Amino acid sequence: MDKHCFNVIIAGGKGTRFWPLSRAQRPKQLLKILSRKSLIDETAERVYSLGGRERTLVVTVAEQVGALRKELSALPKNNFIAEPLGKNTAPCIGLAALEVLRRDPKGVMVVLPADHWVADVKGFQRTLKSAVALAKKHDRLITIGIRPDYPETGYGYLQRGELVRDGVYRVARFVEKPDGPTAHRYLAGGDYLWNSGMFFFTARRLLDEARTHMPELATILAEIRASADPASTANARYPGAPKISIDYGIMEKATGIRVVPGDFGWNDVGSWSALADIREPDGAGNVALGDVVLRQVSGSVVVSEPGAPFIGVVGVDDVVVVATRDAVLVVRKDRAQEVRAVVDALGAAKRNELL
Amino acid sequence: MDKHCFNVIIAGGKGTRFWPLSRAQRPKQLLKILSRKSLIDETAERVYSLGGRERTLVVTVAEQVGALRKELSALPKNNFIAEPLGKNTAPCIGLAALEVLRRDPKGVMVVLPADHWVADVKGFQRTLKSAVALAKKHDRLITIGIRPDYPETGYGYLQRGELVRDGVYRVARFVEKPDGPTAHRYLAGGDYLWNSGMFFFTARRLLDEARTHMPELATILAEIRASADPASTANARYPGAPKISIDYGIMEKATGIRVVPGDFGWNDVGSWSALADIREPDGAGNVALGDVVLRQVSGSVVVSEPGAPFIGVVGVDDVVVVATRDAVLVVRKDRAQEVRAVVDALGAAKRNELL
Repeated sequence: MDKHCFNVIIAGGKGTRFWPLSRAQRPKQLLKILSRKSLIDETAERVYSLGGRERTLVVTVAEQVGALRKELSALPKNNFIAEPLGKNTAPCIGLAALEVLRRDPKGVMVVLPADHWVADVKGFQRTLKSAVALAKKHDRLITIGIRPDYPETGYGYLQRGELVRDGVYRVARFVEKPDGPTAHRYLAGGDYLWNSGMFFFTARRLLDEARTHMPELATILAEIRASADPASTANARYPGAPKISIDYGIMEKATGIRVVPGDFGWNDVGSWSALADIREPDGAGNVALGDVVLRQVSGSVVVSEPGAPFIGVVGVDDVVVVATRDAVLVVRKDRAQEVRAVVDALGAAKRNELL
Repeated sequence: MDKHCFNVIIAGGKGTRFWPLSRAQRPKQLLKILSRKSLIDETAERVYSLGGRERTLVVTVAEQVGALRKELSALPKNNFIAEPLGKNTAPCIGLAALEVLRRDPKGVMVVLPADHWVADVKGFQRTLKSAVALAKKHDRLITIGIRPDYPETGYGYLQRGELVRDGVYRVARFVEKPDGPTAHRYLAGGDYLWNSGMFFFTARRLLDEARTHMPELATILAEIRASADPASTANARYPGAPKISIDYGIMEKATGIRVVPGDFGWNDVGSWSALADIREPDGAGNVALGDVVLRQVSGSVVVSEPGAPFIGVVGVDDVVVVATRDAVLVVRKDRAQEVRAVVDALGAAKRNELL
């Protein structure tokens, strides 16, 4: 454990992509879809060996603080940082940087999405430890890039440049989610890595980069930092922050970034179809959870949460079927992202009880 | 109305093909899937102009008598004939023939399945009236054959022979459900009709035919008829009756049968997929009933019964999705018959609450 190291878990999910299990009041990071623990609990436990519980911070929107404190009851109550409203990751990480700096001027941040999956936890921890050491020693922006197994089109990528030392590369560029042929090319080339969304830097360095690349945000953060009543200032000023991701706002523009390739089995659990890649499938490639019966079904994900109706599926392939007590979703597996279409329709109809 | 005419509604359904809506205690004929009335109520109302309520009989298994009396409360209580246990249609119609004969030695039976759909009720009634008149005047076995619209493989067919008078043909033969090419040939030939399962004959004639073609059944029926305590005799002897349909046991063997072609829009409502043929579909060919949202879906049947979960479907074609409070079914539309696979699995697991 490193006393200057702070885990910063970003927990901003809205509860759309895993509808109907995820809801406004029960976003993805609170779901127990991969194990008996919630995704955020798994995430936190994976990094206690870096920053420890005392220095594990969770940044989320104000209305989720209560539920997250309850879920991560091992963490000190004042380690939950509330965004006055949901912005994107750049403002959110900026807010966390202020808290880290307040606690420790030498603080190093380990920025982690709350809702990812990792297969080899020890390998993950080894990789993160070396990234923390780099961020601290060289005061650079560091990221982890995942070596791709297959030509995934749902992830952003980064291209690595020259090797600068053992297991560490320059970042040549960040690139958006590719189309199929491009993803195949990236995989074949061998020098592209999945953008993991994990970042490592000193809090001071992050704020310096914000001043250079996002001066508007930097000004707001400086005002909050200088205020005698930071919470009030944040409430007044944070809503004016630009809604921009740290990837787009800082990482794609900053120089001297280094990447540590990771190879520990990783998935961003972006939609129901991810369960087919993560959970052990049956002989027909199905993942079936809860009270379900499948007959002549293949390549499907079928989930009935405890207390939800029984599900029987017959003679269909490559679908996702999910039931809760009050809602059922049926979607083609390769279009699982489009669950949003149903959530939007429910929103338009003001069916808040289902959102 | 004809005072010798008796409607005999056969209500023996088990509740498998429309699972999860149909259950052991709520078989298909009690479902309100085509209108606000149950299928059996629709069936009964279509024929009151023939036999009247006083002479409308319902034959069913003993355990369903209570529910059917409640559903058809306009009928006299003693018009419900209980089979001691479910046999096939030949014994069941034989039992009804005894009751008709007891009431009226000249009684003519209109035998109707409880759970079919008819589009043109007036045309249906006209056709049935002429069939009743033929059965009475010529004392023959009469059936109605439906002029096929398309090469259905889910129905039995009959081939008509020579025209014997206006709108009446000899029956050349009954044939089983055909495969696709055969059904196409039947449709092109023009002399094949769908076997509607509707039959017309005097009770006496039916019992005569049973003596010729099903002597074992005829003996049991004669014993019940001669008994001082017919109910006890039925309980003792009926379980030994052969489990054979009237089609197979009598119609395929008897001679001199006549068929009246019908053209009134008819469907045997054999599985969930029938809803796609009966209910008016939306522009994408979907039938959606209850609290459902479809996005980029075509050719599908989606039903959420009142009180069941909301259903959202995205990006799938040609499926059936049905939700009740406690169960969800997802099946490919062209395999809707295979819902039985799920019902069998639930039976094997003794999940009686879902059966």
